[in-house]
Amino acid sequence: MIVIMKPNVNEAKQQQLIDWLRGMGIGIHISKGEFRTVLGLIGDTSKVDMELVASLDIVDSVQRVSETFKCCNRKFHPEDMVVEIGDVKAGGGNFAMIAGPCSVESEEQIVSIAKAVKASGADMLRGGAFKPRTSPYDFQGLGASGLELLRIARQETGLPIVTEIMTVTDLPLFEDVDVLQVGARNMQNFDLLKELGHLDKPILLKRGLANTLKELLMSAEYIMASGNEKVILAERGIRTFSDYLRNTLDLAAVPMLKELTHLPVIVDPSHATGIARIVPPMALAATAAGADGLIIEVHNDPPHALCDGAQSLRPEEYDALAKKVRAVREVIK
Amino acid sequence: MIVIMKPNVNEAKQQQLIDWLRGMGIGIHISKGEFRTVLGLIGDTSKVDMELVASLDIVDSVQRVSETFKCCNRKFHPEDMVVEIGDVKAGGGNFAMIAGPCSVESEEQIVSIAKAVKASGADMLRGGAFKPRTSPYDFQGLGASGLELLRIARQETGLPIVTEIMTVTDLPLFEDVDVLQVGARNMQNFDLLKELGHLDKPILLKRGLANTLKELLMSAEYIMASGNEKVILAERGIRTFSDYLRNTLDLAAVPMLKELTHLPVIVDPSHATGIARIVPPMALAATAAGADGLIIEVHNDPPHALCDGAQSLRPEEYDALAKKVRAVREVIK
Amino acid sequence: MIVIMKPNVNEAKQQQLIDWLRGMGIGIHISKGEFRTVLGLIGDTSKVDMELVASLDIVDSVQRVSETFKCCNRKFHPEDMVVEIGDVKAGGGNFAMIAGPCSVESEEQIVSIAKAVKASGADMLRGGAFKPRTSPYDFQGLGASGLELLRIARQETGLPIVTEIMTVTDLPLFEDVDVLQVGARNMQNFDLLKELGHLDKPILLKRGLANTLKELLMSAEYIMASGNEKVILAERGIRTFSDYLRNTLDLAAVPMLKELTHLPVIVDPSHATGIARIVPPMALAATAAGADGLIIEVHNDPPHALCDGAQSLRPEEYDALAKKVRAVREVIK
Amino acid sequence: MIVIMKPNVNEAKQQQLIDWLRGMGIGIHISKGEFRTVLGLIGDTSKVDMELVASLDIVDSVQRVSETFKCCNRKFHPEDMVVEIGDVKAGGGNFAMIAGPCSVESEEQIVSIAKAVKASGADMLRGGAFKPRTSPYDFQGLGASGLELLRIARQETGLPIVTEIMTVTDLPLFEDVDVLQVGARNMQNFDLLKELGHLDKPILLKRGLANTLKELLMSAEYIMASGNEKVILAERGIRTFSDYLRNTLDLAAVPMLKELTHLPVIVDPSHATGIARIVPPMALAATAAGADGLIIEVHNDPPHALCDGAQSLRPEEYDALAKKVRAVREVIK
Repeated sequence: MIVIMKPNVNEAKQQQLIDWLRGMGIGIHISKGEFRTVLGLIGDTSKVDMELVASLDIVDSVQRVSETFKCCNRKFHPEDMVVEIGDVKAGGGNFAMIAGPCSVESEEQIVSIAKAVKASGADMLRGGAFKPRTSPYDFQGLGASGLELLRIARQETGLPIVTEIMTVTDLPLFEDVDVLQVGARNMQNFDLLKELGHLDKPILLKRGLANTLKELLMSAEYIMASGNEKVILAERGIRTFSDYLRNTLDLAAVPMLKELTHLPVIVDPSHATGIARIVPPMALAATAAGADGLIIEVHNDPPHALCDGAQSLRPEEYDALAKKVRAVREVIK
Repeated sequence: MIVIMKPNVNEAKQQQLIDWLRGMGIGIHISKGEFRTVLGLIGDTSKVDMELVASLDIVDSVQRVSETFKCCNRKFHPEDMVVEIGDVKAGGGNFAMIAGPCSVESEEQIVSIAKAVKASGADMLRGGAFKPRTSPYDFQGLGASGLELLRIARQETGLPIVTEIMTVTDLPLFEDVDVLQVGARNMQNFDLLKELGHLDKPILLKRGLANTLKELLMSAEYIMASGNEKVILAERGIRTFSDYLRNTLDLAAVPMLKELTHLPVIVDPSHATGIARIVPPMALAATAAGADGLIIEVHNDPPHALCDGAQSLRPEEYDALAKKVRAVREVIK
Repeated sequence: MIVIMKPNVNEAKQQQLIDWLRGMGIGIHISKGEFRTVLGLIGDTSKVDMELVASLDIVDSVQRVSETFKCCNRKFHPEDMVVEIGDVKAGGGNFAMIAGPCSVESEEQIVSIAKAVKASGADMLRGGAFKPRTSPYDFQGLGASGLELLRIARQETGLPIVTEIMTVTDLPLFEDVDVLQVGARNMQNFDLLKELGHLDKPILLKRGLANTLKELLMSAEYIMASGNEKVILAERGIRTFSDYLRNTLDLAAVPMLKELTHLPVIVDPSHATGIARIVPPMALAATAAGADGLIIEVHNDPPHALCDGAQSLRPEEYDALAKKVRAVREVIK
Repeated sequence: MIVIMKPNVNEAKQQQLIDWLRGMGIGIHISKGEFRTVLGLIGDTSKVDMELVASLDIVDSVQRVSETFKCCNRKFHPEDMVVEIGDVKAGGGNFAMIAGPCSVESEEQIVSIAKAVKASGADMLRGGAFKPRTSPYDFQGLGASGLELLRIARQETGLPIVTEIMTVTDLPLFEDVDVLQVGARNMQNFDLLKELGHLDKPILLKRGLANTLKELLMSAEYIMASGNEKVILAERGIRTFSDYLRNTLDLAAVPMLKELTHLPVIVDPSHATGIARIVPPMALAATAAGADGLIIEVHNDPPHALCDGAQSLRPEEYDALAKKVRAVREVIK
């Protein structure tokens, strides 16, 4: 940690700060400049309250230089992490196509969509059984029976299944789910993250609507620090002052995250935009930006979908898009 | 729900939409304007996917006019809700002063702070036992033993205690806590909200960093729809592009919320600003804006606080502030 | 305009509103629903203050349905606008590659960069002579002599030149500039926009840091309503809570704008990200999203650039990128 | 400037950076820590491109420690600046009440409002003659004749007049205007700011919708560095994801700015909220937060105002508010 003092501060006050820091067992390297002094703190500075020091009237600013994220830091893991879900791989040059409806609605619905997206080259099936909804009066998902229908669709197609878990107490129901998704609203539900860290199962961690990249990485760190390294990150749009689109898809997060971490980074253009006809250009853009995969909503009958029909592609639209995605992948390699 | 059609749309397509809506049991009131048609939907429109209809190419826009929040809507409850916590009241002209440290650290710390803030006129004691921290490597709170220390402080001072619950599975530990706080990061942890709705205990619901007022009200609705009407709302700053301050305290939310809902609305100037010396002016501003109370961090030794020392007032600073708050209350009545 | 009344409002008050509106020459179409009334306003509603009506206590909400932008509205101009700059075209399937340094620094610098980017296939040369800088103490550009150097570079290479105009009083200096750029900070400098509307010259209008798509279109409308239809829009990143990147590049704005307007839409990945190594993936993503061109900073010696060196590509990096951009163009056609 | 190197970087590369910096005449103070080196740059570091250095792969981060704003920095001017407008004072304990209509509409309107607000204790009259409007089709103000009407109102009441200037070319028209207002959209119209710096006249500088406090101070610096020290800052709400309110009034900016600068800071609650009934609580809150004044919209007939009627108080509402503002001022002193 580097503490930059204000110019010409009272020497006694400065010494008091130094003594207090040394009292916590911190080594201090003092560097006197022409006008001001810079303190270099050495040792375990995690116990030093950075904001408190910054708020002292003799201190100009404070900067933490040791890395706060470790398990997910590419500096310590230069090689791409490859997350394996059965035969499917994400990361390390492997592109994962995840597709399916927002909500599981019926056996016929989920099986037919699963078959369609598989035919278009999808690697995994998504579908919500437990749905986080802003209003308590909106459809909350089929719950456990929705998970059962996903299992049937998996049996019929061989596609691994990806679905959202909302609370620790539901964990037993998700035992044979292939990938557990943590939704944007739960990105900082730390108790849930810790529990998922005890599993040996891939976790798809979505970025929260107002979370920085660093906070996303720290949430991945919660899972990994508990022992589970199989984390896939997902950018799904952030909240801004946007007028025509639901959220703002932050695609520059993709190359930036891939520089900071060795974890795979995928993109969800469906939730980010909320408009089906904007999904294909954003899916292609995400691919060109270097994403490790895409998670896209597909519904066989968008007007009758129980949730988010407005952002779902029809199977034939998904098929056309998947072809273009593969072509872009070829070109940017 | 009002559906505004684009000008000069294909009649057949429009009829198709009308038929589809009627097929869901919705009554349609058609109003033909000079250039365009407006459909008024009558009946239970909660099953109509508003975004889907809006995305149709013949539709210009859609507006929901029936209220989506009911239990917490002032239209249906014109009288202020008064939440009672023992002898303490919040709302309906009663101003609740909540104070205490960010984290409970030791018996001596929490008891001495509790006595100090009581002497300054505080009505309730706050203190974190389970702490939501961005990093898994930061101090996570004393947990159950922190709750025990809060109970001791309550016994010593008679102050009701307010503390944060982070997960459903901890509920049994909170049985005799007076007010359960839901933190900003959990504002849309819907499973937690539903559980809290089954209690007969006041809930202090903090606004999320990127949540709209409507979303805050919908989260209150989750608790109230499950049966617990004792909800206190708290504004604690939103995330913006702010440079010198941690978050942006949205004080206009106070009069706006009080127009929309009959629930009490309090303000947390400590987390919003992150800087102790900005807390007093913001506390006074919140009071002048019509807040029903304040929740403020107070620590007897901010430089040695285990978390958020930078934003804590010393007991003597709190005392001076409390006097001014009461004077502003007198004036704006 | 549609005025949605609150349920069960006082009839006399409602009649007062109707009379007042009729007094302004507005026709009213009244549609009584089960619980509430909807007023359809017919005629020239531009004089009705929408926010005022919305603020009346008997009114639930108001929606303007007639289009507020006309000249730049695709509804009235379904064909893509093609802006011609000499032999270069932007829009209507023509992709414009604009490249060059942030600031013009010397004849040698601008001519050598111009030759390099031309060799890589660039269509136009950019370079700042008048620079908008946050601080009055930062380099403000070479001014008129910078424009002179741009002219020399144009003579040497044949590339049309694109450069920023900051104030109406500088207009005479820009007489033979090929494309006048309006920077993000001037997007709502309405006096400047009106003046540019009197020229017969292409205007490159950059989106402001906190401006919605509608506001961008309204600013284009200022130029076009004054008679100049040659407007090219540019997305260059918006301000959010971003941590590692300077701004947030809003690529979904590209397909959304192209649906709303027939004007060409290009992307500036250099200013949006502020980091040279993030520019290529974002340039490819913008291309895949359907942009009509790219404006990219290129410098022969980024460490010695007088401004924004951190975001400039070296000529050889630009060359490699330009090849990939063309390949992506081929694929998404 | 402090350059913090990454741990264990290549010595040769580090030396290259040091040599390059020394080549610019910068002195370097090298401080080797356990794992990493910190460079302290001494001398005129304004020519060093901070972002460029930060982007080098051997550099962890860079921090500028010398102050970038000088003229408006409280460190160098510990005493409050008092701006005098005739007999009226703003700053240094003097509270300035500015009131009047959004737009000047007629002699009768402006004179009657001026008389009313004077009777309520207002110190200055505001009124727009040149109006920045998002749409070219909206009312753009009465222009020069509006200024003439303001002069008449001044003659009738003795109130100094405050009105917005939008472009350098209008300057001659504003010669006898008492306070020139720079609107939010022009906060970074640097050519305008420079020109205003050559006047000897108070400038009311409004914060832009997405500008940081530092940017606001740098814009004040543009005016002051050109010689005009009479700058009054105004907070008027920032753009966020707000749903029920137009903008988010950032009241914590008031005490924060007053710590950073010695300039007076006033608040505009009318534009920030856009709703007349939210203006009084926000005006009181701004006063309690320590603002040096208020600028409030007052109209004798809000429903017929040509712009922003929705946010205007009636004279009698302003009168009641002014009394409460004075009472809050008494209490917080």
